[in-house]
Amino acid sequence: MQISDIRISSVAVPDPPLLNAAGLHAPYALRLIVEIVSADGISGWGEIPGSEATRAALELAAERIIGRDPWQLNAISATLGSLANPDDRGASPWDQRTWVHVQSAIEVACYDLMGKSVGRPVVDLLGGAVRDAVPFAAYLFYKHEGAGGEFGFERDETASGWFAARQEAALDPAGIVAQAEAMVAHYGFKSIKLKGGAFEPQVEVDSILALREAFGPDVPLRLDPNAIWRADTAIEAGKQLEGVLEYYEDPVRGQETMAAVARGLDIPLATNMCTTSFADLPGSIKHQSEAIILSDHHFWGGFRPSLELARFCAVFGRGLSMHSNSHLGISLAAMVHLAAAVPNLTYDCDTHYPWQDGHDLLVEPLLFEDGAALVPTAPGLGIEVDRDKLAALQRNYLACGLTERNDEVEMQKVQPGWTFQPTRW
Amino acid sequence: MQISDIRISSVAVPDPPLLNAAGLHAPYALRLIVEIVSADGISGWGEIPGSEATRAALELAAERIIGRDPWQLNAISATLGSLANPDDRGASPWDQRTWVHVQSAIEVACYDLMGKSVGRPVVDLLGGAVRDAVPFAAYLFYKHEGAGGEFGFERDETASGWFAARQEAALDPAGIVAQAEAMVAHYGFKSIKLKGGAFEPQVEVDSILALREAFGPDVPLRLDPNAIWRADTAIEAGKQLEGVLEYYEDPVRGQETMAAVARGLDIPLATNMCTTSFADLPGSIKHQSEAIILSDHHFWGGFRPSLELARFCAVFGRGLSMHSNSHLGISLAAMVHLAAAVPNLTYDCDTHYPWQDGHDLLVEPLLFEDGAALVPTAPGLGIEVDRDKLAALQRNYLACGLTERNDEVEMQKVQPGWTFQPTRW
Repeated sequence: MQISDIRISSVAVPDPPLLNAAGLHAPYALRLIVEIVSADGISGWGEIPGSEATRAALELAAERIIGRDPWQLNAISATLGSLANPDDRGASPWDQRTWVHVQSAIEVACYDLMGKSVGRPVVDLLGGAVRDAVPFAAYLFYKHEGAGGEFGFERDETASGWFAARQEAALDPAGIVAQAEAMVAHYGFKSIKLKGGAFEPQVEVDSILALREAFGPDVPLRLDPNAIWRADTAIEAGKQLEGVLEYYEDPVRGQETMAAVARGLDIPLATNMCTTSFADLPGSIKHQSEAIILSDHHFWGGFRPSLELARFCAVFGRGLSMHSNSHLGISLAAMVHLAAAVPNLTYDCDTHYPWQDGHDLLVEPLLFEDGAALVPTAPGLGIEVDRDKLAALQRNYLACGLTERNDEVEMQKVQPGWTFQPTRW
Repeated sequence: MQISDIRISSVAVPDPPLLNAAGLHAPYALRLIVEIVSADGISGWGEIPGSEATRAALELAAERIIGRDPWQLNAISATLGSLANPDDRGASPWDQRTWVHVQSAIEVACYDLMGKSVGRPVVDLLGGAVRDAVPFAAYLFYKHEGAGGEFGFERDETASGWFAARQEAALDPAGIVAQAEAMVAHYGFKSIKLKGGAFEPQVEVDSILALREAFGPDVPLRLDPNAIWRADTAIEAGKQLEGVLEYYEDPVRGQETMAAVARGLDIPLATNMCTTSFADLPGSIKHQSEAIILSDHHFWGGFRPSLELARFCAVFGRGLSMHSNSHLGISLAAMVHLAAAVPNLTYDCDTHYPWQDGHDLLVEPLLFEDGAALVPTAPGLGIEVDRDKLAALQRNYLACGLTERNDEVEMQKVQPGWTFQPTRW
């Protein structure tokens, strides 16, 4: 089996004006879609966060991988590693994030190809499914009014149900509860996560307490202040949430500060910011910085490294959950196959998918039942890309003028002079 | 794809009278051969250390696995885990070693089946080969005269070359050098390991120094005292071997004692005795008990756990080598596929195969070139079992009367009253 072509598409998908510690989401989220075509005409698909820099890295990678066998993942990985090494290439060095993104895009597309070529879903190539459906959490955001995309801060008046509700502003506890109710009603999620770091800590604590009031003690709640709080702030806020939060995600920045907060609170700490690569694992052991790691195949270099991370979590007593960025259905399918193969996935996964739902590039989107995405059983990722929808998302990309994610610049458009602060409160 | 039958064969393979810290090898080494047959008539093979207790555990496992899909390794593993759990089964509980052996036998046979069913060598299902041949080390033993098997302490006078040489006694440095020369001449090994723990430490140190004298500084040497020395003995012996040994394997018992020896010497310590399971990894970090881990898919539960161990080694700065027991060609093929897929395999692997060579159950044994076993490229493990040879090895088992390995009992036959001591010198 031989890779005969690699097609890279920059796409832009409508994204509402969501707030986080880094600022404001642009009207479009950028993704890169990778299609690896085998000599016998099978296509394998991958999806990663988009930027012109990552696209350039992917193009360089693609040149070196044409002609290779997609089953030779170790050899492909070695090639990508040598490209990331500035001693062994002509172009500018890739940073760690670019490298893992490229690795992930290529590896996932190769798995899709391999699965299709042997008639097996990807999950079977990862050891087989331990669950038929992967539970996700409702992922709430503070946000301004607006649908994103061409509508920007305006509403799409033709939308209904969740698709109408997600256009509403959510700038206080009541807005967050309303958003949660609409999202949970539509998808059936059993857990709720609030992305914080956007407002004064007490507003975010009060939002969690309002969610607890609205949903009761049986719905696990999580707060993610996006690492923008000081340790004393995080402990003070956390004290109000002991017995309320399922986990407290990245209240502060850095493994040592996380460890200090962990020691000061009776809530498990989770991270996708202080322990985000294999190089961080020794520090995680040394500092005991978190109880739960949010894996993400886009950020750990694909499926195989993610399974190795899962073993680390099992051995060293870390819980395991899953992080997400704004994404389309290829990434969702990959997340679902991976999560289905991890015995010790101990928490409902994150997904931004409700915010992009309806703009997907799949012929048939993945099905959610009771908050869980059904694991595709067709060969490969078990999805079919709609090439017209892909072309439309590519046109969005060309039209929107964005070339990288920059939430600070977007925030400055609504709050002139606003700057990102690594630690704000 | 469905498993329709599982056939378990107890076999006994001639083994010369080799010495180690536990005593003396019996005239036969016991192995269990597992054949998993799919409904469409494909056979997948596995091989593990043999005993009646392990056979009983395998038979219990087999009952529960008939009818399953060999690709569903996570589900199969969960079933085996539940059998090992005394709360969830009728028979006597499996210990950790039994459990990993059963896991390994089943997983390897399933990979052989999977590979054959998709026309790919097993190494491709493990991420693909990073090397075409796997280098092994010459594995030397102190030994009595004799060929083992039906010959016991006698010679097979029809043997020639290495097969004659391996019948010689090796009870001193000169005997060890002669053994090394014959083994290296036949297989082309580039590294040499001496199993120690059999004689006074100074004899073993002198044997290593004699090997250095005979082979020069370009042939890496390793000494394995089988964890039978005190820390002071190990340091005193090790001081004579600084600059001589490539690594010093299990001179003492236990992670803390290993760490004390490591601190006292300028030689990397290796282990397959103090860090032998995932449960031992936190202690390895805490104590820094070794620099190198000898993996073994038979003892870590199969290929996938072994790849996860390899990642641990890469992340936490451990070198990676491979342990062996007396084995046949199915195990050798499995070791070779695994080793071929591990980028950070940093040392030549161990194999007892030269001691069993000529008694194998394969139609065609694996080829060694310049001390390295060529990675099979045919589907699955890439080997074919000779059913007549298998039947002959089964007859050996029935005839020899052994039901488990017990080197102490064998030693008592030549040294009445001899007892195993966990720490002897």
